[in-house]
Amino acid sequence: MPRAFSVGLDFGSNSVRAVVVDCADGATLGTHVFEYRSGERGVISDPRDPHLARQDPADYLDGLRDATRCALAAAAAEPGFSRQRVIGIGVDTTGSTPIPVDARARPLALDPAWRGNPAALAWLWKDHTAAEEAAAITAAAREHAPQYLAPIGGTYSSEWFWSKIWKCSKVAPDVFDAAASWVELADFVPAALAGVHDARRVPRSLCAAGHKAMYARPWGGLPSGEFLARLDPRLAQLRDRLYDEAHPADRPAGRLCAEWARMLELPEGIPVAMGAFDAHYGAVGAGVTPGTLVKNIGTSTCDIAIVPEAEPLDNVPGICGIVAGSVMPGYYGVEAGQSAVGDLLRWWVDAVCLGDDGLHGTLSTEAARLRPGETGLLALDWNNGNRTILVDPRLTGLLIGQTLHTSRAEVYRVLIEATAFGARAIVERLTESGVAVERVVACGGIAEKNPLFMQVYADVLGRPMLVAGSPQTPALGAAIAAAVAAGAAAGGYGSFEEAQARMTRHSGLDFEPDQEAHAVYDELYGMYRELHDTFGGVPGGRADLGSLMKRLLALRDRVAGGGTA
Amino acid sequence: MPRAFSVGLDFGSNSVRAVVVDCADGATLGTHVFEYRSGERGVISDPRDPHLARQDPADYLDGLRDATRCALAAAAAEPGFSRQRVIGIGVDTTGSTPIPVDARARPLALDPAWRGNPAALAWLWKDHTAAEEAAAITAAAREHAPQYLAPIGGTYSSEWFWSKIWKCSKVAPDVFDAAASWVELADFVPAALAGVHDARRVPRSLCAAGHKAMYARPWGGLPSGEFLARLDPRLAQLRDRLYDEAHPADRPAGRLCAEWARMLELPEGIPVAMGAFDAHYGAVGAGVTPGTLVKNIGTSTCDIAIVPEAEPLDNVPGICGIVAGSVMPGYYGVEAGQSAVGDLLRWWVDAVCLGDDGLHGTLSTEAARLRPGETGLLALDWNNGNRTILVDPRLTGLLIGQTLHTSRAEVYRVLIEATAFGARAIVERLTESGVAVERVVACGGIAEKNPLFMQVYADVLGRPMLVAGSPQTPALGAAIAAAVAAGAAAGGYGSFEEAQARMTRHSGLDFEPDQEAHAVYDELYGMYRELHDTFGGVPGGRADLGSLMKRLLALRDRVAGGGTA
Repeated sequence: MPRAFSVGLDFGSNSVRAVVVDCADGATLGTHVFEYRSGERGVISDPRDPHLARQDPADYLDGLRDATRCALAAAAAEPGFSRQRVIGIGVDTTGSTPIPVDARARPLALDPAWRGNPAALAWLWKDHTAAEEAAAITAAAREHAPQYLAPIGGTYSSEWFWSKIWKCSKVAPDVFDAAASWVELADFVPAALAGVHDARRVPRSLCAAGHKAMYARPWGGLPSGEFLARLDPRLAQLRDRLYDEAHPADRPAGRLCAEWARMLELPEGIPVAMGAFDAHYGAVGAGVTPGTLVKNIGTSTCDIAIVPEAEPLDNVPGICGIVAGSVMPGYYGVEAGQSAVGDLLRWWVDAVCLGDDGLHGTLSTEAARLRPGETGLLALDWNNGNRTILVDPRLTGLLIGQTLHTSRAEVYRVLIEATAFGARAIVERLTESGVAVERVVACGGIAEKNPLFMQVYADVLGRPMLVAGSPQTPALGAAIAAAVAAGAAAGGYGSFEEAQARMTRHSGLDFEPDQEAHAVYDELYGMYRELHDTFGGVPGGRADLGSLMKRLLALRDRVAGGGTA
Repeated sequence: MPRAFSVGLDFGSNSVRAVVVDCADGATLGTHVFEYRSGERGVISDPRDPHLARQDPADYLDGLRDATRCALAAAAAEPGFSRQRVIGIGVDTTGSTPIPVDARARPLALDPAWRGNPAALAWLWKDHTAAEEAAAITAAAREHAPQYLAPIGGTYSSEWFWSKIWKCSKVAPDVFDAAASWVELADFVPAALAGVHDARRVPRSLCAAGHKAMYARPWGGLPSGEFLARLDPRLAQLRDRLYDEAHPADRPAGRLCAEWARMLELPEGIPVAMGAFDAHYGAVGAGVTPGTLVKNIGTSTCDIAIVPEAEPLDNVPGICGIVAGSVMPGYYGVEAGQSAVGDLLRWWVDAVCLGDDGLHGTLSTEAARLRPGETGLLALDWNNGNRTILVDPRLTGLLIGQTLHTSRAEVYRVLIEATAFGARAIVERLTESGVAVERVVACGGIAEKNPLFMQVYADVLGRPMLVAGSPQTPALGAAIAAAVAAGAAAGGYGSFEEAQARMTRHSGLDFEPDQEAHAVYDELYGMYRELHDTFGGVPGGRADLGSLMKRLLALRDRVAGGGTA
C-alpha cells in the first residue's frame, strides 16, 4: 500500500489551523495557522454589551483556503508526500456557533445587504446575549418536556443553538426572517467543501445536533413543533426548515467538490468527514478511551469522556451533554466544560496587568515558588459564567483573602487553582454518575507550556495529568476522522479505535499528584465548594462563610510555618 | 500685641512634617517633610510575617530635628517672622505606636545592644502581630471587667498598647524585661522636647491612654493589676512602672529644654503642648464641631467626632473609643477608623498594576466616567482587616462580580466605593448611637486631589463632603494646641474653640450628594452589608448570597440601560 495522507482543519476562536498528517503514524508533515481578520482577533464585540461575541463567516472561508493551501505547501517540501495521496479531509470547529444562511446555504453575512448587522454574523460559542432565552427554554422544558433536558445536564445554555436563534428573532427579526436555515459552523465548513448549495441538504452532525440542539432519536430528532411553538411560533416554523436527521462521525459528510478541489489543489471527490466540535475531535486526537478524561485546555476548557454504549449510564446533572455516537461510534460521548480557563489568566495579564504574552511566563515562575495555601487567597473561576456543573452564564468572578501584600503572581496562581477546583467539581460529578476518570490527558498550549498549571491540576484532582503527544489534537482528530472516512481500502482505517492506535500518542510528560499538596488542596477545595454552592445558589449547600477568611489565614499561617516575631 | 507663631509637628507612617503657622489666622509660613530612612518608606517589615510593621525611633528624632529646622528656615524668609515670637510647639503622631524605653525614657532601639531586634523598635499602629493577644484581652475583659471595653467599642484591638506589649513579652522576653516602661510615640516626642529623662515622669496624654490603653478615671487609671495578672503576671508588674495619671490637651506636656532649644534655634522654655494622635489634632485643625465628622483620609482613615460632655452619650459598639477630653476639653472625643483606604488604592496601583503615582490620576479619570453600579463589581475594604465596626484584623479583602472585561480602572473605582461603604457603616453606627453627623470634613491628600473619591463619598453617605482648608490639618491642629498651651497672654488663645475660630477654615471645595447616584448606592450598600455581615460573622446578618452576583448584573444592566443586540 503506498503512503496515504489526510488533512485536518481546526476552526478555533481566533484562528483556523490546517495540518497535513501521515496516516501511518499521525506525524505532521505540514501545518499552518490563519489568524482571523475581523474584530479583535476574530471576535466582533459590542462595547455596550459585554455578552456579545460574533464572527464574520468570510474569515472562515478565507482561513479554510489559506490555511489549507499553506499547510499543503509546507508538506510538499517533505520527502514522499504527494497531493494525489491525500485521501480525505476533516473539520472541527468551535460550537455552538450557529450561522444564519440563505436557501443556497450561504451565510447571510456574506450578502452586502446584511453588512454591519451583528445578528447576521456567526454567533460565536461564547456569545452570552441569550441568557434570558436559555432560562425560558429550560423552564418550558422542565414543565412540558423534561426528556429534552436529561441528556444535556438539566439546563439549556445561553451558548447554544436555540437560545441564540430565538434571541435573534427578538432583536433582529429581519435577519431571522431572511434566514432560510441556521447551520452550525461544524456543519457549514464540510458542506462548503462538499459543494452543498441547498440549505435543506446540509449534512448535520450528531455531535452538534445532540449536544446543542436537543436532537435525539428517541423523540424523532429536534424538539417537537409543539414544544417550540410554546416558546415562540416562529421557532416552530423554523423547525420545518432545519433538518430531520443527524449523523455520527463514521460516515462522510460528502466528497470534495470541483471548486474547492481546484482551490486547494487536492483530488476532487475525496471524502470530507462529518464535522465535529473541536473538543470532540480533540479527544479523538488525544487518544480518549474509557477511564481517560481528555481536557482540551484553551481560552475555555472542554472535557470529553467516553463510555461504551453497552454500559448503563444515567444522565449526569449539570453536564453539558451525553450523546450516543457524538465522539466515536459505539460510545456515549460525555461533554463538560469550563467557560474561562486560558481566558481567565489572559484577563489578569492583559486587562489588569497590561502585560504581554511573556508575562504569563514571569508570573508562572513566581507563582511556582508558592506552596498550596500560602497565598491566603481563594477565587471562583466564573468571570465568564459557569458552564458545568451550574450551567449559569450569569455568574461572575470572586476573589477573597487579599491583603495589602497580595501580589499579581499570587493572584495568577490562585486563578489557576480556581480553574483546577472548577475542574475537580466536574470530575467529582462525573465519577459520582458512573463515568470513570482514572487519568487526565490534557491538550492545548497551556498543557504543553505551563508545568505549574499541570502540577496544580494533578495536585487538586489527585490524578495523573498526561500531556497529549500532538500540539494540535483537534486538527489531528479531524485528520483521523478523514482517514476513517476514507476507509482501509484507500489507505485509511476501518475504525476510529484502529486509527487512534496508530495515529495518536502521549508526550511522555507526566505530572503525578503530590500527596502533601493534594491534602492542602482538599481543604481549599472544601472552602471553594462553600463559595461555589453559596454564590452559585445550590440548594442545601453548606457554608460557614463567617469564618472563611479566618480559615484561609489559618491555613496560610500553617503552610508558611508560622513566624510572628 | 506683636505677631505670634507656633510650630506643629505631625509624625505620620512614612514621614514627619513640621509647619510654622501664624497664630492670627493659621496661615502657614514654612513647612518641611522629612522622609523616614529605615525599612520601606520608614516601615520595617518581615518577609516571613506580613503582620509585622515597626519603626526605628532614630527616624523620629532625626525627623524632629531636620523637619523643624527646615520649616523654620523657610518661615524665616517670610516678612514679619521671628524665631523669638514662636510661642509654643505641638506634636501629633500615629498611634497606638508604643515604644519600649529604658529608665531614662530613651528608646531601647537607640542602644546598640538591641540593634537588629525588631521587638525593641517602635510597634507601628498597623503592626498586626498581636491578634491572638487582642482576642485574649477582649475575652478576659468580657468575662471579668466589661467596663474596660465599653468606651472602646467592645473589642480590644491588636493595634493597641497592651496587645503589642504582651506580644513582646512572649516573642522577645529579653526586650520586655529590659524595658523600664513603654511610651506612646505621641507622648515620647513631647517628653523628648521637654527634656524628660525619667521614664516615670513622661507626661501621658488622655488621648493615647484613653483610646488605646483602657485608661479611665472611673476605675482609677489603667486596668487593675488584678486584671492584668489574669492575662500575664508580668503585665501586672509592668503596670507599676507605667503611669497613674493622663492629661487632656489643655495643659502643656512641659517646656522646651535647653538642648532642643539650641538644636532647633527656638526660645528655651516655651510650652510644649500635650501630644495627641494625628487624627485628633487633625480634627482640631479641620475645625471639628458637634455634627461635623472629620475624616482624616490617608493610608488608613481615622474618623473623629465630638459631643459636648453635657449631652448623654452611650457607648457605641464597634467604635474605637469614646474618651472625655481626648480631642478637646469639654467634649467627648469619639474615634472610629478604617484600616486601609489610601493603602487599598496604593495596593492596587503598586502591587497589582506596578504603576507609579501618576497612575492614580489616570485610573481616577477613567473611573470617573463610570456610573455607580455600572461595573457590576462590589468589594470589601478589608485588605488590612476591619477596625470599625467589626474590630477584626483577621479579615481580608473580597472582590466580586469580575468578568473577562473587567478593567483595572473599574476595580480602582470599586475599591474607592468599598471604602465609602465602610465609611457609611461607621456613620450609620454613630448616628444610631446618638452622635450627630450632618456633614463630613475630609482632610488629607486624597481629599484635596481626588474629586472622584470625594463625590463617591458624598453619594454613598448622602451628606455633603467638605475639604479642610489646610493641606496639613494634623500639623495645624498641633500648632493650635501649642497656641492654646501658650495662652492668650503670650499671643495665643484661651480655648480651643477660640483658636479654631481664628486658625481654621474650609477650602470651599464642597461635594454635594447626587440623589440619583445616592439611590443606586443605597442598593449597592445593601449588598455590601450582606457580604460585610456574612463574611464578618455578624450574628443574625441577613443575606441571600446565592442571588448576589445576579443582582449586581441586573443593577449593572439597568444602569447601563440594556443593549443586547
